[in-house]
Order: sequence, then C-alpha cells, then structure tokens
Amino acid sequence: MSNPEIEAQLAPLRERVQEQGNLVRDLKAKGAPEIDVKKAVAELKARKKLLEDKELALTPSVVSFDRAKMEDLLKRRFFYDQSFAIYGGITGQYDFGPMGCALKSNILALWRQYFALEEQMLEVDCSILTPEPVLKASGHVERFADLMVKDVKTGECFRLDHLIKQALEKLSKAKDATPALQAECEDIIIKLDGLNKQELAGVLAKYNIKSPLTGNDLTEPIEFNLMFATQIGPTGLVKGFLRPETAQGIFVNFKRLLEFNQGKLPFAVAQIGNSFRNEISPRSGLIRVREFTMAEIEHFCDPVLKDHPKFGNIKSEKLTLYSACNQMDGKSAAQVQIGEAVASKLVANETLGYYMARIQQFLLAIGIKPECLRFRQHMSNEMAHYACDCWDAEILTSYGWVECVGCADRSAYDLGQHTAATGVRLVAEKRLPAPKTVEVSEIVPNKQALGKTFKKEAKNITDALAKLSLEEITKVEEQLAGDGQYKLTTADGQSHDLGKDTISVKHSTKTVHVEEFIPSVVEPSFGIGRIMYSLLEHSFQCRDGDEQRCYFTLPPLVAPIKCSILPLSNNTDFQPYTQKLSSALTKAELSHKVDDSSGSIGRRYARTDEIAIPYGITVDFDTLKEPHTVTLRDRNTMKQVRVGLEEVVGVVKDLSTAKTTWENVTEQYPLFEQQEASK
Amino acid sequence: MSNPEIEAQLAPLRERVQEQGNLVRDLKAKGAPEIDVKKAVAELKARKKLLEDKELALTPSVVSFDRAKMEDLLKRRFFYDQSFAIYGGITGQYDFGPMGCALKSNILALWRQYFALEEQMLEVDCSILTPEPVLKASGHVERFADLMVKDVKTGECFRLDHLIKQALEKLSKAKDATPALQAECEDIIIKLDGLNKQELAGVLAKYNIKSPLTGNDLTEPIEFNLMFATQIGPTGLVKGFLRPETAQGIFVNFKRLLEFNQGKLPFAVAQIGNSFRNEISPRSGLIRVREFTMAEIEHFCDPVLKDHPKFGNIKSEKLTLYSACNQMDGKSAAQVQIGEAVASKLVANETLGYYMARIQQFLLAIGIKPECLRFRQHMSNEMAHYACDCWDAEILTSYGWVECVGCADRSAYDLGQHTAATGVRLVAEKRLPAPKTVEVSEIVPNKQALGKTFKKEAKNITDALAKLSLEEITKVEEQLAGDGQYKLTTADGQSHDLGKDTISVKHSTKTVHVEEFIPSVVEPSFGIGRIMYSLLEHSFQCRDGDEQRCYFTLPPLVAPIKCSILPLSNNTDFQPYTQKLSSALTKAELSHKVDDSSGSIGRRYARTDEIAIPYGITVDFDTLKEPHTVTLRDRNTMKQVRVGLEEVVGVVKDLSTAKTTWENVTEQYPLFEQQEASK
Repeated sequence: MSNPEIEAQLAPLRERVQEQGNLVRDLKAKGAPEIDVKKAVAELKARKKLLEDKELALTPSVVSFDRAKMEDLLKRRFFYDQSFAIYGGITGQYDFGPMGCALKSNILALWRQYFALEEQMLEVDCSILTPEPVLKASGHVERFADLMVKDVKTGECFRLDHLIKQALEKLSKAKDATPALQAECEDIIIKLDGLNKQELAGVLAKYNIKSPLTGNDLTEPIEFNLMFATQIGPTGLVKGFLRPETAQGIFVNFKRLLEFNQGKLPFAVAQIGNSFRNEISPRSGLIRVREFTMAEIEHFCDPVLKDHPKFGNIKSEKLTLYSACNQMDGKSAAQVQIGEAVASKLVANETLGYYMARIQQFLLAIGIKPECLRFRQHMSNEMAHYACDCWDAEILTSYGWVECVGCADRSAYDLGQHTAATGVRLVAEKRLPAPKTVEVSEIVPNKQALGKTFKKEAKNITDALAKLSLEEITKVEEQLAGDGQYKLTTADGQSHDLGKDTISVKHSTKTVHVEEFIPSVVEPSFGIGRIMYSLLEHSFQCRDGDEQRCYFTLPPLVAPIKCSILPLSNNTDFQPYTQKLSSALTKAELSHKVDDSSGSIGRRYARTDEIAIPYGITVDFDTLKEPHTVTLRDRNTMKQVRVGLEEVVGVVKDLSTAKTTWENVTEQYPLFEQQEASK
Repeated sequence: MSNPEIEAQLAPLRERVQEQGNLVRDLKAKGAPEIDVKKAVAELKARKKLLEDKELALTPSVVSFDRAKMEDLLKRRFFYDQSFAIYGGITGQYDFGPMGCALKSNILALWRQYFALEEQMLEVDCSILTPEPVLKASGHVERFADLMVKDVKTGECFRLDHLIKQALEKLSKAKDATPALQAECEDIIIKLDGLNKQELAGVLAKYNIKSPLTGNDLTEPIEFNLMFATQIGPTGLVKGFLRPETAQGIFVNFKRLLEFNQGKLPFAVAQIGNSFRNEISPRSGLIRVREFTMAEIEHFCDPVLKDHPKFGNIKSEKLTLYSACNQMDGKSAAQVQIGEAVASKLVANETLGYYMARIQQFLLAIGIKPECLRFRQHMSNEMAHYACDCWDAEILTSYGWVECVGCADRSAYDLGQHTAATGVRLVAEKRLPAPKTVEVSEIVPNKQALGKTFKKEAKNITDALAKLSLEEITKVEEQLAGDGQYKLTTADGQSHDLGKDTISVKHSTKTVHVEEFIPSVVEPSFGIGRIMYSLLEHSFQCRDGDEQRCYFTLPPLVAPIKCSILPLSNNTDFQPYTQKLSSALTKAELSHKVDDSSGSIGRRYARTDEIAIPYGITVDFDTLKEPHTVTLRDRNTMKQVRVGLEEVVGVVKDLSTAKTTWENVTEQYPLFEQQEASK
C-alpha cells in the first residue's frame, strides 16, 4: 500500500480521519459531555470505514477472489454445509464434513502443540451448560444483547442495525431519491454502529421503516439476549444458559488451578470447546454463526509484574500493528518489532506482546497470508468494560478485515466479579520483601448471647459477620458507639439488629509475610471457525488456464488428508502395492485416501487437489518392476518425482510434518516428466 | 470364577435363573399375552440380578477397592470435580482439570487412530443444537423420557424408580418391619425395572410413599423428557433441543456422505462430540451425568451383505461373551473366539463381530483390565425398538458392571425415519446382476388445466403429486375411475380436489440397471466419561506398606503427562540441564512437568505418581560430570536406570509411544540403585 498513486487517492480520506481524531482527543481533553464524545467517535468510525473501504477497493487481490466458486467447491466436496438441510436447515449452524472436520482437528492439534504443550499450559474441559448466577456475575445476563424489532403481525424478527441499513440502502437507490436524501441515508448507514437504542428508534420512525417481508408495522426496538436459555434438572426452577464463551469455566475453577500449580503465578490455562450465541440473523457463512468452537487461554499473573520470561525469544518478530493512534490519525497499519512496541508502551506489557507474537507465528504456520494479517488495537471507547488493553488479530478476507483472535488484558475484572458474587476469595498470595505489621480489626461475637437471642439464626449471623469487609467493620464500630445497634443482613436475606451485648470490635496487630492480590488475566481468544474460513479463502486457487480446476494450497501440516494413493488403472496387478502402501501409511499415522475409481489419472489428481491433498503416490507399470518405485506428486507445483517403494512413506511423513520441503525432495529424487492429462 | 467353592454357592441361584428363563421361552413359544411375558421377564431379571450380585460379592478384588480414597485423590489433584462448585455446584456436571482433560484427549487421540484412521472412516463434526422435527423423526421427542414424581408443595422432583427403592429399603429396615413385609419390599425392589407407569403408581399408593425431604404428598407419576429444550433464533417459534446423542447428525447428512464416498458402500462415519441428558437425579459420579462426550461410529452397509473385509484379521480374538441365552440359563459369560461366535450365528454378522473385537482391542490398549470386560447381549425384550442385535461392552467397576460401549445393529431404522419425515430418499444404489424391466406408473399433470384452476397453488400441487408413492398412485387411479375425483393434500396442509381434466395416470415399462435400498447401520457408541472412570478405577493402586501413597498405573500411551523432570535440589547448577531437557521434550512433542519445588525427591516422586506420570528424569550431581547422565525412573516398579543426557528423550519417546517397554530399557541401561526416600 505504499504505491504513490494509491496513496494520492487515499490522502484526502486520511486527512478527514485525522481531523476527526483530533476533535475526539480535544473533546476528551476538555472533558466534554459524554454524548458529544460518543457522537464525535461515531463520525470518526464512519470516516475510518470510508478510508478502509477505499483501501480495500484499491487492493486487487481481494477483489478478484471468486467467493461463489469457492463456496460451491466447499459444498460439493462437503468441507462444511448447512446443518439439517434435509429438514429445511437452520441458519447460522453448520456441519463439518470429513474434510472440514479433519482440517479443524489438525488446526486444533497444532494449536495444542503451539500453546498448551510449548507454553506448559494447564488445559481444562469445562461444562457448557452454565447456571444463571455465574453469567450474572460475568455481566452476560445483563449486557450480552443485540437490538431487534418484530413484525407486529407475524412476529418475524429483524436485527435492528441490519434492517435499517437495508431499508436506507433501498431508499437511497429508489428512482425518486434526491441527492440530499441519498447523502442523509449514507451518513446514517456509516454511523449506525455508534447509535443508541433511542437514536435507532428515531431513525425507524423518521423513515417510516416497515417489515421488508410483509410491509407490516414493527415494534419498538427490543433488547434480545444472545444466550440460549434452558432449564437444568426437572423442576423448571434452575435456569441455565449455553455458555457464550469458554472463559468463565476457567475463572470459576481458579482456586483449583492455582492449587494444582502449587500456588505459583504466573500460569496459563487453555480450553478448547464450543460456545453458543443465539444470533438474531446470522449471516456471512462461518463468520457469524450460532454454535462455534473457540480456543481460549487465560494467563494469570501478578498485576504489577506482567513481563514474560520467554519474551526474549520473540522480541524481534515483526507484526503489522494498527494502533489506536494510527486509527485516529488516518494512518495505515505499520510493521513494528514487538520488542520495540512494548518498549515504547504502544503494547501495554510483555505478556500481551508475547502472545501477540505467538498468535502470529501460529496463524502463519497454518497458512494465513502474512500480508493479510494485522493486529488492530481497540480504541479506548470500543474496549470492553473489563479490558485495559486489547489487540485483535484481524485477517483480510472477501468480507473485509475479520476479527479472528482477540488478545485482551482483562485485568482483575472476572476474578473480582466471581469473588464478589460468591464470597469465595479468588486470589493469589505473594511473599512480601520484608514481613509487615498490620492492624487487624475483627468482630468478636459473644456466642452465648447470640445463641440466647437468635437461637437457630445464630450460626447464619456468625457466618455473615466473618465475611464483613474492613470498611464494614469500621461501620459496625461507629454504629455500636452511636446508637448501640448494628443491622446485619445474613445470606438468606433476613436482617437482624445486633446490640453491644452480642458483638464487639477488637483491634490488634499482626505480622504478615504474604500479601493477597487478585491476579490479572491476559486472554488470547481464538475463533476457530473464522480462522478456518479465512485460511480456506487464502489457500483457494485455480489452475492457470483452467478456471474450472480449483484447489486449496493448505500446508501439509493442516491438510485434511496427507496423501493419496492412485493406481494408474484398475489392473489387478497394482492391488498388492496399493494395499501395502495403505498399511504403511496407516502405521506411520498418515491420513490418506485410496482412489481406485475408474477416472483418468489426471481427473483423479484434480479430485484430490480439490480436497487439498498435498501429495499423491501413483502406482504404475514401473512399480511392478524391480527396483519397485512409485511417483510422488506435489499438489501445488504438479511436479512429480520417482521414489523407491520402500522410501516413499518416510518421504511423505517428513513432508507432512514439515521436516523437509518439496524443494529438497526434488533435489534428492529424479523428476518424473510424464505430462499430466488435464481431464 | 471357575473356583468350585464359589460355584457351589452360585449353583442354586443359577438354577433359579434357568428355571425362569425356560418359563419365559415357554410363554413366548405359546404366544402368551404380552403382560404375562413381561412379568416373567421382570422376574427373570430379578433372579439374574441376585446371581450377579452374589458373583460380585464373591470376587474379592472389586470389594477391596477403596472408592473414597480414589475420589479424594481425583479431587485433590483436580482430575475432575463438580462444575461451578463456588456457586454451590450443579449435580451431574463435571469440569475436567488439567489431568482429566489430558487423559480424555489422549484417549480420544488413540480412538481416532484405532477407528477413524485405521478404518479409513469419514469423521464429521455436527451441530449440537437440533431442531425439533429431527428428534421427532428419531423418536426422542416421544420416547426419551423417565418417570418422576413431584412434591405437591415444594415442586421438588424425584426419579420414580430411585424414590421407590429408597422408600422400600427404609420401610424394610424399620424396627417394626415383619419378615413378610421385608420380603415384599425386596421383591418389588428387584422387579422395579420391569414395572410400568400404572404399576409404579400402585406401589406409591400401596405404601403411601411421601417426599423423603418434606413428608409432603407426591403427584402422580409424570413422564419427563430428558432432552434440554431451548429456542433457536429470536422469535421463540423454533423449538430446539441439545442433542441426546451424536448419531442423528450423521444420519441427516447421509446423502452428502454417500456422495463424498462416490456412492459406494460400505463406509463408516465417526463423530466425537458432546451430548446432553437432563437426568432427573444424576448420581454415581461420571457414570450418569447431564453433559458427556461420546464417540460414535455409524457403519453403513448393504442389509444383505454384512460381512467385513477385515474380519479375517481379528477372527481368532477371544472375547468374553455373555449371550442372551446364557443370561436366561443362569450361566456365566464365556470366552469365545469371535470367528466362532459369528459362524455359529451367536453374533449376528461379521461387521458387528468385527467392531466388537476392535472395541476390545481399543479398551485393552488404554488399560482396561481384560478380566473386567465382557460383552453382554441384549435380550430380545430389552433391545431398543430399532435394533436387531446389540452387544454392550460392560466394564466391571465398584458400581458393578457398567455399560461403556454399545454395539448395535440398528438396521434401516434411522434412515427410514428421516426419509419418511422429509421425503428426501436416504438410500443407496447397487447394480443389479442383470438389467430388469419394471412397470412404472406415474401421474401426468395437465399443467395448463391445473394452472387455470388452482393459480398460485398449482406449483404446490405438482410438487405433492411428484412425491406420491406407488400405492398412492394406484389409489389415484382407482378414485379417478370411480367418482372421477382425487383429494390431494399439499405440503402446506391444504387439500384440493383434482378431477380427470387435471391429472391422469400413465403406465409404461423401463429397464433398470440399479436397485435402490436403505442401508443398514451398525453402530458402536462409546461413552468416553464412563470408559475414563472405569480406567481410573482399574489403574488405582497404593504402594505396598504405605497406604497413603496412591497412584495410577495408566499406560504411557494415555497418561496425561509422559515425563517429569526433577532436579535433585534447588542448586542452580542443575538449571541449564533442566531447561535443556524441557526444550528437548517439547520438541519431541512429549508433555512433561518440571518440579523444581523444594520437597525431597521422594516426596516429589510421590506427587508425580499421584498424577500418573509414568517416567521421571532426575538431574543430580553426576549429571554435571562428563559423560552427562541422568536417572530415569519407572512409576510402576519405582526402579531407576542411568541414561545418557542426550539419549534420554529418545528413550522416553519410545516408551511413551509403546515402541519399547520398561523391561527392555532395564536390559539396555545400568540400574541405578539409590534408595528412594518414601517421604
């Protein structure tokens, strides 16, 4: 994108972004009202989007990609397809066929190797069904919602922002649309993300938007929680949800995990599993679905000690960083060494930087194109309420830049929330540099008096007293000194008046050697379906001169099947060799496919190319002669070499595990020059 | 169990079973009323249970197992534990900690190798959320239910059979219980499984059973469907369930999978995934839970051709078969070669037999004790409505014999049901030995006349006509010849009278080369949690003379962590060696744990034993000298050898992948004789 012609076209757009970015900074600096800041930010986002769209439009590789053709192949060879299609299908749900399933499972195996094994993480596998209180504490019950409207007659639902966009686009394309109306519509569409419920309702009313299916009136905007609700157990009284993310399962197990790690920090916990979001109107294929696999890491560390012991290993790795600053200044993303980025505080700390570099290494290893990967920093106004810095690994696809891995510093938010909700202290301890004397205030219950006055309730009261915070204890002391009474609420919600005869406050000092603290959490969170889809786009190719012969250049490490075995014809003399090769490949744990169907060899190669098989072994008449040899074909170059029958499985194993490359193989073995028939 | 003393004790019980088994056979032969057969079968089961309980009581190894001690260890080292415990927990849901998760994932990896790879299966990954019509067709909406009763005041629910058992046990243990009452109670408890809703309601009334928690009255028995219900999408109109088994996802994709396999049968499809059952009152730890991982195989084949090409490979494998016959005759299970079992028709066909042998190979490979494994055949009265033969792999645990893998011939049931529900023909084709001429009857619609009469509806009508079966077409012909009208119901439920002017029936002949048929399905279905739990029981051990030092003898192939690295002390000279070993193990993809904490070496060995780490590398003062060596310790024998630093990772790799054994290693390397401190 450093092409001067392109830059000339982008320059005015960049300027407009920068201008607005400066306005936002000014407003914030002046402490302007929140509503003004929000409006300015919406405009900033709108201008950023114009810039980005233009940038993409000027990047020919993306524009020329033929998505329909790829989707046809994915469907035809059952990489994945809509679930329950024979029953009419459900949008936003997909079944992975043999190729999709193998690709996914190879990506996950590599993920385990890159993260769980290499970083010595604790991998866990937690429940999907989650009781309501857990998700209340995490904030999902209250906040995890999208706005929708319903057709007042049919009950059909529409996601509000999608509906408005569609309606205004139609309006501005109408024959009688004035240029003023068109500009107005375009302006609203661009700012849509930044509008709140009231503002969106205003748009609905102003343009008199109706149901696009029936023309009926629509309800007011409704907040729709995106979690799937169900009941756990037969009583109908225990409300539960399908988890919307895997992270909460890790947080609620923090104490057990810390203990497993012998009380030491830092440590990281990994989890691979399915999560669920009841999208109002799912779209964009695998990008936005109702059921999806995530791979999440929660790295727990001391909040004042976020350096990483292995940071040195990756510090010279170059990442494309699209910082919040650059976004506000209308600048492009920039290549930066992660070591420099952390040193200059652009990236908040070493741990966050370490994971960003490792995320990049992983994505490139599975075959994501480096020029289509960037890390975009959240601007302070779009960051989740819990995060203190967040960088998304975004991958460029025909849908634009897609967020595929989030990498957030969630600080102490989650552990704090669950501690508050349960009273179980999710904390770690660290040894103080020197022992410290601290003042301790504690409530001393007069058990006899309590028992006499409160009978059965006395136990609940002493339990509640033991949980009081230091501030509460101070309050107790003040109130006892004042009117001689303190009103205590026990866990069952009852309140009791406690007098001086039943409790007193004792002060003492004690020497402490350790300090308790709530650990910080750095969370890299991978959307496996999105990564997979992006990878398929990046590896989709058609043969030069034969647009109908399409294939995927998936790296052997993640390719669903590593090798094909093709007897040249259905001559029965080939069978013992085919079988022997198949057994040897199985023993070497190499997935493979024997294709002894009757098609021509070229046609069978094309079929194996379609499902991304990187190597093909052909058994031909020379195989029957001593020394027995076969040909080995490379999918990407279509070149073939002649290899000894006994050696070929070892060669494929080394190729599939990235221990050697095709270039090396062509240097070691003679090329086999026979022309490949194209059909 | 061929001990003559034990046999003498069992003989009368065996006789009573046989007596009743013969009665059941007689009744069936005579065509006695179903209710009489059912009663006799209930009595048969009761007698079988007495026999089995006695057999188990006489087997000391099971009785001496200390479950509480094992569960304490599993909890303490977080193999698995109750989900959401800090929120009070949910029964029937478990989180797998680092060790449980790694064990599970190793078992699944081996499963993939044994089945998906070795048998060239098509592995798929289908949606969990399933729309109602799919589960209506499969029979789950109607039949997948347990009986429960509710406390009329509190709404508390009880699983009916559990409740009655508990109540009658209490009743018969009461001080004033007469021997007659005790016998009566015992009799009912034993027959409980065979009683229907009315009979159970009768028991409730007769013994005036109340809520055990409150003493309140109970409702009549209610059928409670065990599926978790939810709504898909925002309208609240699309009812869905969490799948109760993974199988249906495969059946609804049958057409795509057959096509992927180029139309050829047989082929097998595998799926690993979570399923959900809303148990009324979950119990028995991992044995009966609400959320669980299954690994299922659906092997599709021609119903008249159920032999298996690889049957020869396993035909001399010996299995412990507990046939329906033996169960009715009061005999024990017997060791039989699977080849003989299929030849004698004891096992219905080669495909079923092949999978039974492979299931056994797999279970033994992960460490299940052979003497605690049997295959129990379903008796005809307990077989699911769809199955034509079914053998459960049962594993003996402290809970008794537990069904861990079902292996059923489901015949054409499922594909037939989904075909009927959707109109999509889930069938395969096979070439006829010779072409065949068949008569074809088809409806010829007069499109013009239909369009004129039915306008917009005409399309629906022609669609419905195209779907009519041969019998329906005959009916059409008859009715047109009769009163000249045929009443047709279209997909939207409307009916239309069609006259002779709009449709006619045409007869012709055509030559067909292929025949359509619904494939049969053989289904091995693995309950991964149950297998895992059984394996933990089978591998739980305590050191001779030190009952507090417990460990698991899990085979290296499935052990969560393959190797520990223990520096003898915290001397910093050891660090470079520890780090080097850790890097080398990571490169070799071996999970490992460095324990450089301050405990004595013996204590640290004990800690690694607890989490089943099979091998331990110790870095000591000799490691610092040239030639650099370390000790390698075997968990099971506690023996150690001295191995070169450069070699040791290779040795551990070979041990962990079962390429060598500890015995071989001790022959190759010098024993290291230093005493292991016990604490």
